Order: sequence, then structure tokens, then C-alpha cells
Amino acid sequence: MTISLSGTALAAAIRAGITGTPARLAIVTATTDEATAWYVRSISAAAAKVGISCEVVETKDVAGTLSELGNDIHGIILATPVPGEVPAAEFAMGIPPTKDVDGANPVSLGRLAAGLPAFAPATAEAVVRLLEHHHIEIAGRRAMIVGRSTVVGKPLAHLLLNRHATVTVAHSRTPDLAAVTREADILIAAAGRAGLIGPDHVRPGAVVIDVGTNPTADGGLVGDVDPAVADRAGALSPVPGGVGPVTTALLLSHTVDAARTAAH
Amino acid sequence: MTISLSGTALAAAIRAGITGTPARLAIVTATTDEATAWYVRSISAAAAKVGISCEVVETKDVAGTLSELGNDIHGIILATPVPGEVPAAEFAMGIPPTKDVDGANPVSLGRLAAGLPAFAPATAEAVVRLLEHHHIEIAGRRAMIVGRSTVVGKPLAHLLLNRHATVTVAHSRTPDLAAVTREADILIAAAGRAGLIGPDHVRPGAVVIDVGTNPTADGGLVGDVDPAVADRAGALSPVPGGVGPVTTALLLSHTVDAARTAAH
Repeated sequence: MTISLSGTALAAAIRAGITGTPARLAIVTATTDEATAWYVRSISAAAAKVGISCEVVETKDVAGTLSELGNDIHGIILATPVPGEVPAAEFAMGIPPTKDVDGANPVSLGRLAAGLPAFAPATAEAVVRLLEHHHIEIAGRRAMIVGRSTVVGKPLAHLLLNRHATVTVAHSRTPDLAAVTREADILIAAAGRAGLIGPDHVRPGAVVIDVGTNPTADGGLVGDVDPAVADRAGALSPVPGGVGPVTTALLLSHTVDAARTAAH
Repeated sequence: MTISLSGTALAAAIRAGITGTPARLAIVTATTDEATAWYVRSISAAAAKVGISCEVVETKDVAGTLSELGNDIHGIILATPVPGEVPAAEFAMGIPPTKDVDGANPVSLGRLAAGLPAFAPATAEAVVRLLEHHHIEIAGRRAMIVGRSTVVGKPLAHLLLNRHATVTVAHSRTPDLAAVTREADILIAAAGRAGLIGPDHVRPGAVVIDVGTNPTADGGLVGDVDPAVADRAGALSPVPGGVGPVTTALLLSHTVDAARTAAH
């Protein structure tokens, strides 16, 4: 019987800790694609529920907009993708680290890697928080991340290393991925490809965390992990209802942390 | 017959590319320990040979000294350790990224991880350059780093990921280290413990890069790799004469790059 690593109770607990502090969040978006619009709406709705004011700023001039956000804004999220040639991380250099609630500024990632205080990218932190919430031991275990993105795979590697896991990052250029991922005690699928991780990729009894959020033709959401993995894994996080709600709750929690810090 | 992955020819080639540009390097040091003093002298001597002016600034006020370095300084190295409670990486936030020739500022590490232009820590870059110089394929191979330091292990993980290796970072808290490291096609020893990697840790034919520079009682230098590994590895970098000279050459090369950029 596979344990379902739900994130809903943890998300509720995080949200319960953040009410009562006035805070303002800005989401800067330069893209009109539907997935991004959905993401922005879902953050806005979640913010409203805990009394965080959320301003969505649509712009074609990301750098200019970031530089003009007022002092009354406590947290800033840059929605991706950012159209054009300049990488999103380059624009994110314009987010002050104290307001970088999704850890998008490379300085936040570098500080995280160096063991200095910084906001971690919310999705990466959500994975670790979900493991801890379900009392899954990290220290000394083989953790395997499939996906090397700047927003999830790479920062997650640092978070897991800081917690004493032996960490492997695999990706689309890894030969015989299944043989590699079967070494994992804790397997994290963060490649953004529906069904990439099948039963063959999983050692029986391993813990599997599914970070994927791939839209389906009928308007639903599926992860990177094939549902058949449930018969093989010792524990598996659902999509939706696993990493996702924890990520959203952490974004809001970071925003309140930023507001509290700014008030001192 | 094990191939010796010498760094001396590569170091000479790098140095040959950097003469003729006036450049000034500052080494800021707050420590009096002998290993650091040796390191500072060796950089100074190497700089002098290629016509780079090198100023050693001894200080008890690292942050103040870093903020007061003049515009005529092109490259800045902060010698470690920095005594006291504040991590060296926090002080390194005071090195302007354009002058951060040893990639010590967390923003440099973050930019590296995000795939943005930045100076890499010279030792980490030296490992990759040594592999490339000896025509060792990186893409698609299992690379294993033993050691998770901010100055070597972590940035090296990003450099190898960017070159499409499947990367594992192991460390002192990894159980059964030998079983883990035997998976490696390319094994990089960067733990700072003499003789840590023995023949049992190495798959026959694997490439082994020794980053260790451990002082011996008689004033010599040994790596992290037991010499007996030579009978088992397909290729092994010597200590001294492997990663070390390439690291020094890269520090000087970065300084000249910084001077050229500043001139434009």
C-alpha cells in the first residue's frame, strides 16, 4: 500500500501561520500564455484568502517595471516565461533579494548554495517541506532529481545537500535514465514531461515526489510520474494536491516574512 | 597503464594567452595561517611572471577593505579562511561581480547556476578545463564529486551539469562512499582529506581528478586520492601538477579578462 504524500494539510498549516500581517505582493508578467495566466490567477486567489494584497502588473518592459515597484510592495514574483532573448534569471537580478519571495534572483540561489539566508524558490522548498512533513529521513539517503532547471532542480539540489543527502541530478541527456533513477531512495520528478517516470524508474519502496504540472487536453493537470508507479513506490505525492498547494502557501508565507522583516 | 592528466601544459597555454594586458590584482587576507600565506605567495609569484601587478592587503576589517579598493584594481581575491563568525561568502558579497575573479561572491555562483555569464571559482573551472584539455567526454557521463564546498564541489556540479553530465555530489555524510563512487565514469575528489579515495572507490578504467591539496608533515603536498588508485583508474590527475597550476593560471586569466572588460 503506497502512502500518498498529500500537501493539503501542510499547506493549510503554513497558511494558518501567516494571517494578521498586512503584506503586499506584486506579480510581474510579460506573457499572455494560458498556463501563466492560470498560475497568476491561482496565486492571486490564494493571496486574497489570507488577506495579502496582490497586484498583477502586465508589462512589456520587465526591467523598467521591476525598478519602478514601490516601497510598499513586500514580495515580487516574476511570472515566466519572459518573451525575448534575455533569460528570465537576468531580469530577476532586478528583484531586491529581500523581496525575492520565489528565489528567482541568482543572488538568492547563490546565497542558498553558500548556506547564507535567502528565500528559496518556493517549489524547491515545497519538496523539502513535504518530505519533512511526512517524516521522511533525508540525511544520508540517495536523493535523485530528474530535471536541472534553475527554478526547481538546481536549487533543490542545494536544499537536499544542506540536509546531508547524497544528491544526483539527472536530465534529458542522461543515458539509461531508469537504471540511474532506480538507485534513488528519494526520487524527485521535475522534468516537466507527463508520464516520464514509470514503474521501471523506481526501486520498490522508494519515495517519489512529483513536481510536474503538465496541462492535459481536457483542462486538467498531470504530473511527471505515471500513475502506475503507485503500485511500486513506498510513498508518492499526488498531482494535484501534493507539491502544488505547498508551493503556493510558501510564496505567501515568504511574502509575509518579507513584510515582517521590512517592518523592523 | 594509467594516463596522467597533467595540468602544466594547459596552464602554460592559458598563461600564454594573457600577456600584454596591464592588469591589477588584489588579494585581501585576514588570516595568518601558513597554508593561506603559502597560497598568497604562490599567486603573487605567478602574477609577477605574467606582468600582472599583485597587491596583498592584510586586514582585520575585511568588509571595509573590500569597499575601499580602488577603481584601478581589476581582480579581487578574498583569501580564506576569514576568522570570526561571519561566513566568508557573506564578506564576498562585497566583491563586485565584475572583479570577482575567483567566483567567491554568491551572485557569481547563482549566475553560473542560472547559466548567466559569471566568473567561476577557479578550482572548479580548472577541473572542467583539465578534462576538456585531455579530450575526456563529459556529456552523458556519470560525474561524481566527493565534497560539497561552496568553493569547489557546488560550483563544479553546475559546470558539469551545464555540460550535460549526470552529476552526483557525495560527502562526509554519504554512507558506503565506495559503493557510490564506483558508479562514476568521472570521479572528482574535493573533500580535503588525504588518501580518502582508495582503489576500492574507483571503477576500473574510470577518470579520477584529484582536487585535494593537503599539506604533509615534511612540507610537501598530497591529494585526496591514494596513489594506489593509479593501478585501477584509466586516467588520474597528479598532485602537484594537475588541477593546481590550471587553477592559478585561470585566476590570472580571469583578472586579465576583467581588465579588458573594464577598458571597454
